[in-house]
Amino acid sequence: MENYKPLLELFNAHLNSYLKELDKKQPRELYDPENYILSLGGKRIRPLLALIGCDLFDKNPSHSLNAALSVELFHNFSLIHDDILDKAPLRRGMPTVHSKWNTDIAILSGDVMLVKAFDVLKNYEATKLSSLLNLFASTSIEVCEGQQMDMNFETQQNVSVNDYLQMITYKTAVLLGCSLKMGAICAEADTENQNHLYEFGKHLGIAFQLMDDVLDAYADDGKFGKQVGGDIIANKKTFLLLKAFELADAAQKNNLTALLNEKDSTLKVKGVLNVYDQLNIKNISEKEADIHTQEALKHLKAVTASESKKKELERLAMQLLNRQS
Amino acid sequence: MENYKPLLELFNAHLNSYLKELDKKQPRELYDPENYILSLGGKRIRPLLALIGCDLFDKNPSHSLNAALSVELFHNFSLIHDDILDKAPLRRGMPTVHSKWNTDIAILSGDVMLVKAFDVLKNYEATKLSSLLNLFASTSIEVCEGQQMDMNFETQQNVSVNDYLQMITYKTAVLLGCSLKMGAICAEADTENQNHLYEFGKHLGIAFQLMDDVLDAYADDGKFGKQVGGDIIANKKTFLLLKAFELADAAQKNNLTALLNEKDSTLKVKGVLNVYDQLNIKNISEKEADIHTQEALKHLKAVTASESKKKELERLAMQLLNRQS
Repeated sequence: MENYKPLLELFNAHLNSYLKELDKKQPRELYDPENYILSLGGKRIRPLLALIGCDLFDKNPSHSLNAALSVELFHNFSLIHDDILDKAPLRRGMPTVHSKWNTDIAILSGDVMLVKAFDVLKNYEATKLSSLLNLFASTSIEVCEGQQMDMNFETQQNVSVNDYLQMITYKTAVLLGCSLKMGAICAEADTENQNHLYEFGKHLGIAFQLMDDVLDAYADDGKFGKQVGGDIIANKKTFLLLKAFELADAAQKNNLTALLNEKDSTLKVKGVLNVYDQLNIKNISEKEADIHTQEALKHLKAVTASESKKKELERLAMQLLNRQS
Repeated sequence: MENYKPLLELFNAHLNSYLKELDKKQPRELYDPENYILSLGGKRIRPLLALIGCDLFDKNPSHSLNAALSVELFHNFSLIHDDILDKAPLRRGMPTVHSKWNTDIAILSGDVMLVKAFDVLKNYEATKLSSLLNLFASTSIEVCEGQQMDMNFETQQNVSVNDYLQMITYKTAVLLGCSLKMGAICAEADTENQNHLYEFGKHLGIAFQLMDDVLDAYADDGKFGKQVGGDIIANKKTFLLLKAFELADAAQKNNLTALLNEKDSTLKVKGVLNVYDQLNIKNISEKEADIHTQEALKHLKAVTASESKKKELERLAMQLLNRQS
């Protein structure tokens, strides 16, 4: 990420001036939560991708600052509302908005952030705005659909591996593709380049989520940010679990089903990992992630832009995919 | 409203084809609530105003159908989320979305409707889209601010009459102005005409809300849709109550304060109305509404459009303001 420091600093300065304006607005119950969640930090991957999508075509990345702000506002809106749905008490080690304030305020301050994600686009020249709105609105709808699919999976029987891939594509991946493409639109890149960047981001997002599933089960405790095995303990229908059910024979299926009800979490994690190992699930999942990584890189390769800038973006992608190392 | 029947039918046909498309979409948990609330009916005032705002300038009102759909989607999104905040079990005599499904689904289906309120604008020609988005996003932000102010008032001491007027302007009135102006934008009316129509709709909305406050306290039981005195029983800080506190002498203030804690609702309503009568509150409120009605009509008069069409819109406004008769 080191080489992207100037772009990140550019975005952070823009975000700070946005937050400064926000400080002047009323009612505070609506805007304090927005300021709070935007100040919790995070890697700012989506706005960075928007800036990169512009910079790739040698346009001043400041042209894409409001597009970058838009995707960051949308992402943070979705965090506030998802945290309500997940009943999550903490986000980045700090109280979630609905815990710190209350659910009503979390709903309404999320709503206003969603509106602002559109509002900050308004000063783009009309033709650009039209392209940006088309893409951003469709993507936002898909993200909501992905979130609802994820909620449905909790109680739904017979979720297939394909259902899961569709869900993570919508819930996680399309916003990464959208961020890059919005940057490319700001740079007035041609449609083909825009679409290659979108596909690069989307497949990168899918690979990223698959590797996240693998890490949740297999990371070294100290290096992974979350509790290892958390997905297994929560019976989360990850790629790993769904693939295991798909490949399991009758005995392994019974074993897995029994393990879903196991109360001792150490035994549970050990038991499930044992079935995963029998079925080679780690390797299969990494291969699936690799298919999407390769697909992503194929699209990046097809983008007409400087080789060194493309190489830099490839390095960023690789870093994101190997977060543990 | 009779003369506006063709415009209403035009909108209803457009809404129906939108709902038909919606039927094809997944996941159903996201789209059934949207279909449900949009099918609950209502007067469709906002989309009608959008169509009127276009038709006034002799442009084919079908140009404003997607703007009309946009404001109706936004209005219904806000109903879904407001009903969660208000813990309302019923809406138009039917279960609210969060009662019929659950709060998670109500949050998320509301979110997607809010996105769609922007999404349905995307096919407008770029310059129009830019104007529409600018106006619609600012208005949406104000509506959220108004809703938060309204929530704050529940526990806030010393709410002034001016605070209240600001709140209803944002929560209710600006969306009416916005609907008319979006129609005018679709008709390519000049900025002055757009703004006069906006001000007409805004002041009409303020007058409408003030008359709603009056009706809640003074309507004949059979003719008013809601329980008469409902605002008084709920200690709602309406124009009437705030004005009464503003004008009351020490004894009347004590009386009002004591009545806020009265458990017997018949005694409570009778007691508060008694103070209102002493202070001439009904008359004062109707005068305040009339100021905004006159302001609205002044702006309508200034619009450059056919006198007969303006007269028709004036008649609609008067009908809305005298809903009881």
